[in-house]
Amino acid sequence: MAQEITLYTAKVCPFAQRVEIAFEEAGVKPTKYQIDLQNKPDWYAPKVNPASKVPALAYGGPKVTPENPSPESTKLAESLVLLEFVADLYPNATLHPKDPVALARARFFIDQVSTKVLPPFFAFSMRGEAPDALLKALKELQALLPPGGGFAVGPEFSIADAAFAPFLGRLELNLRHDLGLYPVGEGLKVHKQVFEGAEFARLQQYFKDIVARPSFKTTFDEAYLLEHAKARLAKAGERKASY
Amino acid sequence: MAQEITLYTAKVCPFAQRVEIAFEEAGVKPTKYQIDLQNKPDWYAPKVNPASKVPALAYGGPKVTPENPSPESTKLAESLVLLEFVADLYPNATLHPKDPVALARARFFIDQVSTKVLPPFFAFSMRGEAPDALLKALKELQALLPPGGGFAVGPEFSIADAAFAPFLGRLELNLRHDLGLYPVGEGLKVHKQVFEGAEFARLQQYFKDIVARPSFKTTFDEAYLLEHAKARLAKAGERKASY
Repeated sequence: MAQEITLYTAKVCPFAQRVEIAFEEAGVKPTKYQIDLQNKPDWYAPKVNPASKVPALAYGGPKVTPENPSPESTKLAESLVLLEFVADLYPNATLHPKDPVALARARFFIDQVSTKVLPPFFAFSMRGEAPDALLKALKELQALLPPGGGFAVGPEFSIADAAFAPFLGRLELNLRHDLGLYPVGEGLKVHKQVFEGAEFARLQQYFKDIVARPSFKTTFDEAYLLEHAKARLAKAGERKASY
Repeated sequence: MAQEITLYTAKVCPFAQRVEIAFEEAGVKPTKYQIDLQNKPDWYAPKVNPASKVPALAYGGPKVTPENPSPESTKLAESLVLLEFVADLYPNATLHPKDPVALARARFFIDQVSTKVLPPFFAFSMRGEAPDALLKALKELQALLPPGGGFAVGPEFSIADAAFAPFLGRLELNLRHDLGLYPVGEGLKVHKQVFEGAEFARLQQYFKDIVARPSFKTTFDEAYLLEHAKARLAKAGERKASY
């Protein structure tokens, strides 16, 4: 019998979108509960995730409302753990490539996203550091993509794509609207380089394939994210004048 | 037909030991090649692992000597990627628990080791910072262990144990011999607390179960590690006088 599943998520959070994409790919609709990250409910940390982050899952146990998670359900957290979990639960979605080598490549791709791409991504977007390290990391990640086309490790969409897509989508959106703690105009410049320049042609094709994917479209609320990015920027105050 | 497998490793490296343990658990003997981390062969980065780290695998392709890796073999790197790969290749070793929830718990345990335990472990051992953060992290990790006994996520040895054991083993060994960049005597003090004190009783039982495991014993060369730790300490020079 299918288990009860509640996904605690937040539209704004790229880590949570990883897991939303995975459920979409599996064709499974968990109960979704939006956590307001600026104002988390009191019961969330003690009853769902002690680390007080999204995404988190309540799996199994009796049917309950998300605000009253049952002690009988299993609570799981950390986006990559949940991504693998969804892939394990629904093998027919082939989020885990059947070939162990392709699966290892998918996990290596995710490792590179986590350790090489995300640190300079946050440094550039959130702290206004120069984009050089991010551009270098994106070029190295691009080099991992199959040259002839397809997703991160082959023709089929996998955990590697679900892990990276939320960040690539936000990068493109925020650069296009010049929304980040970099100097005014810098976002547009980097957007032109990464999403139009010839040196990133393969990444651009990959991005097109990602945004065309129903699992991505359904879980990426562009208008909402744009509003959120504008509000965050307004709150952060002063942007840098130049590097 | 079984594929050719060469594991590029180094006895001193806890990350590499993770993969050695996994092969032992699977009862598979890859060709092992020791990389001298202080003096890496010129061919290693260009032909095996561009990141120039161990562990790395050459998988498949023709039978060759490790010094002459074939372009036809698949090169794979990153210890956790390789650990999962070995678990995928040899499912009978049950390094991946069959129950998806237990498997998710194993990956969560590994995530906590990577993000919570290792940073203060290195800060204490290699930079001589106070042990408080490490003790706190170990206590939180201990709380994840099944209270009644057994390995990290149940009665069977899993990827979670293979990922943590090399670090726990080195911690115990180095503390017991007071080898680290902390003040003289501090290692013995922390050893007493973690490996004898009542508050860490469950971790002590877990440690006993780990060191009794043939896959650990075979891949943990205590005399070699001890010599290496002493040499590194002598080279590092001055230890702190106190915190």
